[in-house]
Amino acid sequence: MPCSQGSVESLALYYVVCAARFKGSGRVAKLVVLIDTPDRPGLLSEITGLLHRLGANLVTSLGYAVEDYARLLLIVDSPLEPDELKERIEEQLGEDAEVKAAPLGPEGAELLAEFLHDKPGLVNLLEVYLEPPDLLDALLRLPRDVRRRLYRVLSAQSLGGIMLLADEATLREIAESVDLDHLAKAIATLDPDEAVDVLQKLPEKLRRQLLGRLPEELRREALRLLRYPPDTAGGIMTTSIPVLRAGDTVQQALQLLRRGDHDVRDTIIVVDEEGHLVGLVTVDQLLRASPSEKLEKLAVRPRATVEPEVDREEVARLMLRYDINRLPVVDREGRFLGIVTVEDVADVLAEEAAEDIALLGGLETPRERYLKASIFDLFKSRLPWLLLIYAIESVTANIIKGYEDVIQRIAILAAFIPLVMDTGGNVGSQASSMIVRALALGEISERSRHDIVYVFLKELATATLIGSTLALIGFGFAMVLSGGNFMLSLSVALTLLIVTILADIIGATLPIIARRLGADPAAVSGPFVTTIVDISVALVYMGLATHLVLKAG
Amino acid sequence: MPCSQGSVESLALYYVVCAARFKGSGRVAKLVVLIDTPDRPGLLSEITGLLHRLGANLVTSLGYAVEDYARLLLIVDSPLEPDELKERIEEQLGEDAEVKAAPLGPEGAELLAEFLHDKPGLVNLLEVYLEPPDLLDALLRLPRDVRRRLYRVLSAQSLGGIMLLADEATLREIAESVDLDHLAKAIATLDPDEAVDVLQKLPEKLRRQLLGRLPEELRREALRLLRYPPDTAGGIMTTSIPVLRAGDTVQQALQLLRRGDHDVRDTIIVVDEEGHLVGLVTVDQLLRASPSEKLEKLAVRPRATVEPEVDREEVARLMLRYDINRLPVVDREGRFLGIVTVEDVADVLAEEAAEDIALLGGLETPRERYLKASIFDLFKSRLPWLLLIYAIESVTANIIKGYEDVIQRIAILAAFIPLVMDTGGNVGSQASSMIVRALALGEISERSRHDIVYVFLKELATATLIGSTLALIGFGFAMVLSGGNFMLSLSVALTLLIVTILADIIGATLPIIARRLGADPAAVSGPFVTTIVDISVALVYMGLATHLVLKAG
Repeated sequence: MPCSQGSVESLALYYVVCAARFKGSGRVAKLVVLIDTPDRPGLLSEITGLLHRLGANLVTSLGYAVEDYARLLLIVDSPLEPDELKERIEEQLGEDAEVKAAPLGPEGAELLAEFLHDKPGLVNLLEVYLEPPDLLDALLRLPRDVRRRLYRVLSAQSLGGIMLLADEATLREIAESVDLDHLAKAIATLDPDEAVDVLQKLPEKLRRQLLGRLPEELRREALRLLRYPPDTAGGIMTTSIPVLRAGDTVQQALQLLRRGDHDVRDTIIVVDEEGHLVGLVTVDQLLRASPSEKLEKLAVRPRATVEPEVDREEVARLMLRYDINRLPVVDREGRFLGIVTVEDVADVLAEEAAEDIALLGGLETPRERYLKASIFDLFKSRLPWLLLIYAIESVTANIIKGYEDVIQRIAILAAFIPLVMDTGGNVGSQASSMIVRALALGEISERSRHDIVYVFLKELATATLIGSTLALIGFGFAMVLSGGNFMLSLSVALTLLIVTILADIIGATLPIIARRLGADPAAVSGPFVTTIVDISVALVYMGLATHLVLKAG
Repeated sequence: MPCSQGSVESLALYYVVCAARFKGSGRVAKLVVLIDTPDRPGLLSEITGLLHRLGANLVTSLGYAVEDYARLLLIVDSPLEPDELKERIEEQLGEDAEVKAAPLGPEGAELLAEFLHDKPGLVNLLEVYLEPPDLLDALLRLPRDVRRRLYRVLSAQSLGGIMLLADEATLREIAESVDLDHLAKAIATLDPDEAVDVLQKLPEKLRRQLLGRLPEELRREALRLLRYPPDTAGGIMTTSIPVLRAGDTVQQALQLLRRGDHDVRDTIIVVDEEGHLVGLVTVDQLLRASPSEKLEKLAVRPRATVEPEVDREEVARLMLRYDINRLPVVDREGRFLGIVTVEDVADVLAEEAAEDIALLGGLETPRERYLKASIFDLFKSRLPWLLLIYAIESVTANIIKGYEDVIQRIAILAAFIPLVMDTGGNVGSQASSMIVRALALGEISERSRHDIVYVFLKELATATLIGSTLALIGFGFAMVLSGGNFMLSLSVALTLLIVTILADIIGATLPIIARRLGADPAAVSGPFVTTIVDISVALVYMGLATHLVLKAG
């Protein structure tokens, strides 16, 4: 390999040569390797020679000297696992060499960050070989000031890619670091719908300034798409798909596809003179048809369309349910506006899933990445929820206080409070997550009378079954713990039964009600149910105990 | 419209004619309409005439007479919302007519079920116009015996589509109702990877019997795919994509695509003589290239490949992160096995999201639809979890019992137990859902040392901030409720501070540990954290109270 000479100094040149020669077949698994080792001539030939023997491809490598040490960063396409490769390289270089290896991704990003920390400038030699997510992950693991320096030196291409992935806070940071023209250039490297995703996250004023600097065509397209909120069909649809008239021919369609400058390249849209959607034609249809054939002859009516206002989650459900890869978006009059692809759906699902996880844990969805969020941001996003629960729990406390004298006389009562409350809470969240799930999968509909009645009865039955079981066990347990206080144990058991049924019904119906009110079912689930339950527990349990135990004793 | 004559009796003929004439442009929104009205000649011409005036397309309609009443089912492609359409039809038919309208989907399925209930045989006239999910939803809303009758009369096509969507319990039900040959025919209507998804859900014995009855080619393909577990790359990949040799020409590739009998039609796979993956070629590349061009010249190396054993969630993360639509699956030697499409990813995401919802609620993922699961199934799937919590809470109870005398003397202590415990529990689940989310989005990596330390410190800081705030408020609240008992209020406050920090750290670290152990982070979140917290609360709170309050008093 002619490109394996020299020591670290000549690397910047070196890596280009090798990258160009990169070729191979079979597995593709890119690793990041960070090497700290005493510099010496022929160091690279050793390493590249080794990689060659291991059947690994060197995508790129660069480095710099720290005193008489060389710090090398390799991106390798390797048949070996990271740890194997690490060991083999350490064997080769001897024990003074420190080697770290990780797959490209969040882990690899840490090594990239470590490498860039001292020589940010080298990012320009690196960015060509990194996908935006890896680049962004590396940046987010660097100190703020280094990161800001890097934003400025990145190519418009890389910067655009990063902005598309960045959360609002990071975007603000980027906007503050980079001058408007470069920002505009970066955004101009994106598809219209992507550009709009970015613009929508930027403050009004900045957005207008950037729009003014965008290329004419992109600006017009962006302004059109900006009308739709991001969480609607219009907000996620792409307009980068070939559109032709019913009267056009297969020939013309193929010519358009040949350009390959559209996002969607396997389907074309056919519209009439007024732009009303007539149908879709797939590329294999075109290949089969005669060049002079009119498109209206081939156009297949889609199985469904949506209007731009439809919620993106609904769109995702629809496309998943009917296994639709290309869903046209049309206005009320049926004019074609754009198309939602299954790629968009995948993104939506990932985001919505993350949102649900947050909601079920009692959080509003964070508007910035965890790594970027300041401690005070987290504090602000979490406290309101906790205070709400707090307020509700203070009611519980008040109720129990009302029974102070009862507790004074039967202190053991207190011992069962957590048991009963947690059981109620968990039964409730079980029920609600079961229903949230069934709703999400479209197994049941919040609009179907049949389903609502069905859920109610089924949960009533299940809860009674579970409740009696828990009551039975609880009774035995209470008898033991209270040293055979029958009435006390009875009130524990009855509370368990009542609370289980109550919690289950509340937990199961809340999500359905939420859906009917157009709210997110996940939002009302979890902690919410728990607190409602706790209050009823306090009332039922203390009430029962007072009557049964005191009246008895 | 010539097809709008006659009364209900002639419908079965009628609907075909109209369906054939069905055409249109613009919006596509299918509604199901169920009409019960006194039968009379010209009834249909009235309805179809009305639909025509409303600009709605009649996809199909059929019905039967009940005494002198006609029960009509229409599937309409309508520009009006269900309720509007319902009203307009009711106006037309007068008040003796009962009309229900709903969009196709879970809701519409209820109307389909209502219609099929009395005349299951009519399903054969209907199935042609229904997508499998709608058909299945309708069936699941029918009584078991009717449903079983329906399975038998369904076409192989429809039955295959339903089996692909059905859960294990429903599949078993189908297998029991339909004879082997028809089952095999149904499965033979599916793509190999789909057929395998179904076969994998069937009991070993039945699977072998069915495999024996499948067409030769499908059987061979299925046997190959059956080697991979359903939750791996191999389990979700499709093999229905054109594969050619490096030496083949663009001409040959286009010919293969022209047949259009593959699942993936916008990309071809190029392999060498031994079947090693060389690269991918997209259809627009082919259209641009000269027909005699060799494919190896065009083949583009994929950005990544995976081996069949890789977990499907990891595959989804990879494809989302790098925005990959076609991810080749290769064996250790780099031989091409199949391809994972973004469609597959969307399905995986939907399922995994549903799984997480279940786990966060403290459920193992239901193996059958909610509508099918028997009450006893639900009972069995929910009880173990509740008993586990129960066991843990019994510890709490025991701890508190240990302080019986303390409570006797300061009964008010009990009032704050729920407040403190729920706060801890909620802080914990907030922290864990935040981390589960960040892990799911790849914002942080459980393998990155940097990230783990970062999370720990950040949560420590946030929790301290939140804890102090809650402690302050809690102190004030306790002072009021306890009538100025300073030491008691102090122990409430201190407990809140300690518990908040404890709960947050536990909640944040558990998911990371789970990931490192290869478990699902969502599984350890939620209820789990709560119970761990409760025990520590019992210890800290009662301990503090005893020391501070008693020693003081």
